[in-house]
Amino acid sequence: MNNYTHQTAPTQFVEAAGIRFAYRRFGAKIDIPLLFFMHFTGTMDHWDPAVTDGFAQDREVILFNNAGVSSSSGEVPTSIEEMAQHAAAFIDALGVKKLNALGFSIGGFVAQQFTMDRPDLVRKLILVGTGPRGGEGMASLTPEGQKIFGAKYDPADEVWLRAFFTPSKRSQAAGRKYLERQRTRKVNRDPLPNEKAAPAQLAALQKWGAAAKDPYAYLKKVTQPTLVVNGSNDVLVYTVNSFILQQNLPDAQLILYPDSNHGAQYQYPELATQFLKG
Amino acid sequence: MNNYTHQTAPTQFVEAAGIRFAYRRFGAKIDIPLLFFMHFTGTMDHWDPAVTDGFAQDREVILFNNAGVSSSSGEVPTSIEEMAQHAAAFIDALGVKKLNALGFSIGGFVAQQFTMDRPDLVRKLILVGTGPRGGEGMASLTPEGQKIFGAKYDPADEVWLRAFFTPSKRSQAAGRKYLERQRTRKVNRDPLPNEKAAPAQLAALQKWGAAAKDPYAYLKKVTQPTLVVNGSNDVLVYTVNSFILQQNLPDAQLILYPDSNHGAQYQYPELATQFLKG
Repeated sequence: MNNYTHQTAPTQFVEAAGIRFAYRRFGAKIDIPLLFFMHFTGTMDHWDPAVTDGFAQDREVILFNNAGVSSSSGEVPTSIEEMAQHAAAFIDALGVKKLNALGFSIGGFVAQQFTMDRPDLVRKLILVGTGPRGGEGMASLTPEGQKIFGAKYDPADEVWLRAFFTPSKRSQAAGRKYLERQRTRKVNRDPLPNEKAAPAQLAALQKWGAAAKDPYAYLKKVTQPTLVVNGSNDVLVYTVNSFILQQNLPDAQLILYPDSNHGAQYQYPELATQFLKG
Repeated sequence: MNNYTHQTAPTQFVEAAGIRFAYRRFGAKIDIPLLFFMHFTGTMDHWDPAVTDGFAQDREVILFNNAGVSSSSGEVPTSIEEMAQHAAAFIDALGVKKLNALGFSIGGFVAQQFTMDRPDLVRKLILVGTGPRGGEGMASLTPEGQKIFGAKYDPADEVWLRAFFTPSKRSQAAGRKYLERQRTRKVNRDPLPNEKAAPAQLAALQKWGAAAKDPYAYLKKVTQPTLVVNGSNDVLVYTVNSFILQQNLPDAQLILYPDSNHGAQYQYPELATQFLKG
């Protein structure tokens, strides 16, 4: 093991499939690693140290930027399938043979696809603030999401107060604490994704979310024990999609937190980390 | 505190509102007591010792038979409202001023009504395998429920293998363990409810479950922190009703367990007890 934390782990690089992937590894190598799949327009710095360091107490944590995002080279592809292929190439290049996967939002779509493509690699799956192919309100950004991502914020990262937290006093207070934690890393922060990343990610999530016939049938193939986590009032990937995931996955547990939005795991980081470990 | 357990706690009696209520108390008086509201046709002996004794490690547990059920006198009323009034009379007679409440199935209906009637009494609420007024498929026994309760079993208590567990090997194995635990108490077991109890309870649950305009509005009045728990495939009170409860209660958390039916808390007693304590 190394003594790195979320704040101090150096950004490392590995080449695979023509991409130079940026990643960070830290935590106790007591258990197989936990691989984090990031949300829309996020970088490694958008994870909550309370969650990543919480997990790192008894397992190695791997953060990475997928192709075209921030400090990784290449282009963001316009499909979840290609993102999952990139992630698999990255993991193979690291030589990791078995892992647990945590996907948040669009990262949850990629984690599902990754698990279907490479079931041998994945022991357990954690799906946070996410949904199934063809889920409810998922064919585009939700009306709430369009408003939230269309507005200006000063400072700009306050967008996450609206995207991840409810308007309640309690949730906003938790949001401000999350922002503080998220800003704590000072050295070698990731650059923000370039202007091509968001449109490509949007195109990918719209294809994933498009209405389809019997859209949830594929979930029967995801046989890993899965934990589905969300807030009570997710306005970006509606909470009902977490219920749909749980109802259609063969071996899934659901937890919905009170008075919380897309980023429930950042509102209740101790609860979420403790629970996710169980 | 006393040294009683689920198996050894004597059945005691208290008079209130013209009823002689049978009850049992046991567990460590570290926290306010946890009052259990029983399911359709159940007696105090139908609780799972793994759950009740699990809770009793760090709080006092109160089991009781409501009016007309088993060792309690009186008649089973044909409304949830009257059942809640009886429960309140019972608790007042015990002199308990503050408690947590756990309601299972029809007991969850009564616990909701009890909490609305006497918000001062209830600190936290746990709703297991239950649903809201006018919930989905709740205007009568579900078709699955009619089959399950209409069939014959030998021994008769094997009805709970079908009512509380899924057909999977894993769930049925857990069900047999629950039955063994539930049968362990040998001394002073409760008599089964008389033949008038089930029809009255049915009438009450049908009124509670009947379709209504804006049926979930009342849940906004239940402001206590609430934990909603169910199995992934509840065929008696459909699982979606747990989601509806969580979505409409102001401060509720939901947990749905994998591959489980109406009695998820008996399938995963350690998990459930540990989690419910949190």
